[in-house]
Amino acid sequence: MMSTTPVATAPDFADIVTAANRLSGHVHRTAVHASRSFNGMVGAEVFFKCENLQRAGSFKVRGAMNAVFSLDEPTARRGIITHSSGNHAAAVALAARERCVPAHIVVSNNAPRAKIESVRRYGGQLTLSEPTLAAREEAARRLLDSTGGTFIHPFDDARVIAGQGTATFELLDQVADIDVVLAPVSGGGLLSGTAIAAHGVSSAITVYGCEPALADDAARSFAMGTLEKNVSQATIADGLRASLSERTFGILRQHVNGIVTVSEDEIIHAMRLFWELFKLIIEPSCAVPVAALLAGRVDVAGRRVGVIITGGNVDLDALPWQKPLSTH
Amino acid sequence: MMSTTPVATAPDFADIVTAANRLSGHVHRTAVHASRSFNGMVGAEVFFKCENLQRAGSFKVRGAMNAVFSLDEPTARRGIITHSSGNHAAAVALAARERCVPAHIVVSNNAPRAKIESVRRYGGQLTLSEPTLAAREEAARRLLDSTGGTFIHPFDDARVIAGQGTATFELLDQVADIDVVLAPVSGGGLLSGTAIAAHGVSSAITVYGCEPALADDAARSFAMGTLEKNVSQATIADGLRASLSERTFGILRQHVNGIVTVSEDEIIHAMRLFWELFKLIIEPSCAVPVAALLAGRVDVAGRRVGVIITGGNVDLDALPWQKPLSTH
Repeated sequence: MMSTTPVATAPDFADIVTAANRLSGHVHRTAVHASRSFNGMVGAEVFFKCENLQRAGSFKVRGAMNAVFSLDEPTARRGIITHSSGNHAAAVALAARERCVPAHIVVSNNAPRAKIESVRRYGGQLTLSEPTLAAREEAARRLLDSTGGTFIHPFDDARVIAGQGTATFELLDQVADIDVVLAPVSGGGLLSGTAIAAHGVSSAITVYGCEPALADDAARSFAMGTLEKNVSQATIADGLRASLSERTFGILRQHVNGIVTVSEDEIIHAMRLFWELFKLIIEPSCAVPVAALLAGRVDVAGRRVGVIITGGNVDLDALPWQKPLSTH
Repeated sequence: MMSTTPVATAPDFADIVTAANRLSGHVHRTAVHASRSFNGMVGAEVFFKCENLQRAGSFKVRGAMNAVFSLDEPTARRGIITHSSGNHAAAVALAARERCVPAHIVVSNNAPRAKIESVRRYGGQLTLSEPTLAAREEAARRLLDSTGGTFIHPFDDARVIAGQGTATFELLDQVADIDVVLAPVSGGGLLSGTAIAAHGVSSAITVYGCEPALADDAARSFAMGTLEKNVSQATIADGLRASLSERTFGILRQHVNGIVTVSEDEIIHAMRLFWELFKLIIEPSCAVPVAALLAGRVDVAGRRVGVIITGGNVDLDALPWQKPLSTH
């Protein structure tokens, strides 16, 4: 009888340092990009940690690698199972391949084509499911029962959270004296790791989560003081449709200064401007903190700001500023 | 009476070293990107010198800065004039602004919107012309007569060629033991500088120019041994529609091992694959050497290959894999 219950509660800063050592050689130390033009637009010095240039195209490989490489050998050999709307899936497939163990990946049948193809490219065994959390969880449970493998949740897992925190740990080593760190928030795994890493380096750093107004469970949870669920997932930011868990909400309440939201138009504008200015492909989910800066949702005047750019996996046939062909 | 005749014949390696020193602090030392997946596809180790991440979005700022900053003060104050189908225009505007002198830019009225906007962003004074070389030259001549300024040709200028060569000079410092260097060829300024820089570092390096089959003047000039002009400019690679000059043809005959051509479909496929694999935005012109590698036009098996990625200025409303809306 396997369980999908994660193995631990919350990681601490030492777990992030351990993860950073474990990941060495398995993930890229990604570049930090900046632009004088962008700094002029927002009146701050902004440093973008480019996890879109990470292996498998997103930060998710950090959490997946940390989880997969922390397993003992007999456990790892029974294989890895996960469900994911996208980037976590490719990341787990790559991590399992690198450890030479099987990966069974449950992916929503409406996930972007590029994300499904990258699971295949990394040798993951795909199970497509209906695009609901319940359907994905049921499919994963069946796989767990038949293989005896290990489930790695996309965000509700202390090993995954510690791995995601290594992006900020690296950024703060690459750029001195950061005052503010911004990351998008979905299930809260990245933002939890980001906040623990930032406060491990300096308790003076303020951390904000950035969220689409159309999937604003974290903002409402912060406002209400209780864990709220998304009532809409209609955002173009397809990586940000999950809701917080008890675990991540608990971490965020302790370490995050606030959650700000942006509109769909602001996301699309920010994504396009980033492409034009930086010549770097970012997916809609990463454009959310960029949009928050451009819209002045966070007070960053004159400060040094770090932003986690989360991923670059985009369906190039369905860019958000393209008019749908069917309307013509 | 001003002339558009360039000031010198051909630069040598020492001119490139001088240019590299002159450009220090004015241009980015751009990153070099590589991909295990891409290397596997072409059976070589390929290092992409990412001038799409350069200031103003292309390598052109190197030649423009070198030319503008080599002028004496009274000459510079009378202003800079150029005509260009695109990236050179923005580059000259930026170089003139950095030297605090006026720039008058003649741009074809069919140039991509993003390129025209970047001239404006850098404070260049725009004169739109019909999209023929004769119309652009006539407009530039009128500006020269009225201002007494200095004309900086997009490629037929020794100062510009030396500046463009600094990209390869940097690349060969960043990556050891390169065997082969590839660059696209249009008017031949970049390829001339590339070849002089490569052979200045090591005479053992082989250099190839890569050209769209639909604008193949350089390939035909090499085959015939005489300077040929483009008979078609119908290529999607809008930065590669110019023909060689006597000067650049002379340099290329001395330093370049061959010219290879690729089809439009190969360019579009290579551009899209590069976006998906590297998460870096490249314009169609830069996809030409990428396409040459993917199509096996250059023998690179097991060798270390440098590729100059020239620019990232793309009209995001008119990507080549999008079906035109008007056909629906």
